[in-house]
Amino acid sequence: MYDIAVLGGGPAGLSAAISARVRNKTVAVISNDYRANVLYRSNHVPNYPGLPDISGGELLERMHGQAEKLGAEFITKRVISAMNMGHSWLLGAEDELVEAKAVILAGGIIRSEKFAGEDAFVGRGISYCATCDGMLYRQKRVVVYGETEASELEANYLKEIGCIVIYVSKRPENGKLVDSIPFIRIKDMEIHGERAVTHLLIDGEKVLCDGVFLLRASVAPMDLIPDLAIAQGHIHVNTTMETNLTGVYAAGDCIGKPYQIAKAVGEGQIAALRAVSWIDQQN
Amino acid sequence: MYDIAVLGGGPAGLSAAISARVRNKTVAVISNDYRANVLYRSNHVPNYPGLPDISGGELLERMHGQAEKLGAEFITKRVISAMNMGHSWLLGAEDELVEAKAVILAGGIIRSEKFAGEDAFVGRGISYCATCDGMLYRQKRVVVYGETEASELEANYLKEIGCIVIYVSKRPENGKLVDSIPFIRIKDMEIHGERAVTHLLIDGEKVLCDGVFLLRASVAPMDLIPDLAIAQGHIHVNTTMETNLTGVYAAGDCIGKPYQIAKAVGEGQIAALRAVSWIDQQN
Repeated sequence: MYDIAVLGGGPAGLSAAISARVRNKTVAVISNDYRANVLYRSNHVPNYPGLPDISGGELLERMHGQAEKLGAEFITKRVISAMNMGHSWLLGAEDELVEAKAVILAGGIIRSEKFAGEDAFVGRGISYCATCDGMLYRQKRVVVYGETEASELEANYLKEIGCIVIYVSKRPENGKLVDSIPFIRIKDMEIHGERAVTHLLIDGEKVLCDGVFLLRASVAPMDLIPDLAIAQGHIHVNTTMETNLTGVYAAGDCIGKPYQIAKAVGEGQIAALRAVSWIDQQN
Repeated sequence: MYDIAVLGGGPAGLSAAISARVRNKTVAVISNDYRANVLYRSNHVPNYPGLPDISGGELLERMHGQAEKLGAEFITKRVISAMNMGHSWLLGAEDELVEAKAVILAGGIIRSEKFAGEDAFVGRGISYCATCDGMLYRQKRVVVYGETEASELEANYLKEIGCIVIYVSKRPENGKLVDSIPFIRIKDMEIHGERAVTHLLIDGEKVLCDGVFLLRASVAPMDLIPDLAIAQGHIHVNTTMETNLTGVYAAGDCIGKPYQIAKAVGEGQIAALRAVSWIDQQN
């Protein structure tokens, strides 16, 4: 069991990991590859104190390297479930389980637009994890909705094990899909079925299928933890970055504007130090 | 008139100045010499994201240089008065007046221990500014209470213009006093008089004098702005760093623990961006 699981590998999450490691807590940072962060492609960050005119990529490399050198562990997976175990949280990171005493949510701007029908068919044709559920759909027709390079690689895996795969996305292709998987750029889709999923309406077009893999860049925190208090589209925290749930903290863009690096870094630090105090009080 | 006056030249103040300049606002940072900041003497800062294992001095040099290069102006003086002018604030920085649309308080940990009798004799023998009031005490006996190198230099100035000067401090001497000024290390002092100051009790010892110069490292924000809301010894702010007074923001150690650099830098940025929005709304 880790002391602290940090969900998100951007400035807020890395700052939290750095401060927690300096305070000698064990830390797992669970996130997409940090090089996939939009900040990574920013050419010029003018207002991060101490590092004038740095690129977003170099800043993230520095922060990531610093956290790593201090002993933070990195798990490059998407967290798709979170369960409150009383004195800890059990996180499902695709096919891996991660347990931690405290959780810091630092996943960036919250996007929680579900597809029509999504909630109705979870576990009955809808899956959030190719590695976990792929085998159930061998020789069957699946639609993969993805947003990242990693989700294209997951679609390839499904193809490899024998699924009949169509890949759809609201975003442009990242170029990792094998040629035998058709890519369709979509605006929206609806999920339909009876006992289980039978077909989709993709921009009005009917597509028959047995399963749908929804591989978004990240699961929105309120979908991960339904009890989490949200205010105006952001996770609600107090000035010490505590959410409404004991042992759960949040920092960075997910708690509100301005969407800025120094702000995120400051909040990550406050969240980590608060989590550290709380953990120490439990002992 | 400046858009923003930042009171304090540590990480919170410099971060505020950097973000305000990037948003093209005019900025004056009013503070003691930044090299007098306690952080400047710290050998090792382990947890500032992006700059691992940097010294406090180098970090401050970098932030200061960055703010300067972006066009922030630095006024190395103590702010001893603040007056609300309706649509702006007029700050007395020793012998200089600085007007700004918005004020960001970033003066660090608040120390507001007044001497007994201090409030009773302000303007009647008590002064907070040698340059402003020195001439009134030529050929008279003055006690200078000081805390910094700068206050020792101010005592020298008083001596030069003909005052009879004793220098007292709760801190060790900084070595700038001329030999003809006696230095007394004190624990406490009381100020006594009738219509005006007549004598002090310095650690129980009676010392006759005509005037007292109280040259603390900085004037506590609640003494500067008596209407400012304070909570548990810190300036009370909301999550956007607004104080209870319109146009007045606060960031860094003065708003609460943890006393950490990344926290201060994040809050300085939030305060600056909030001040920028508010100024833009006024136009």
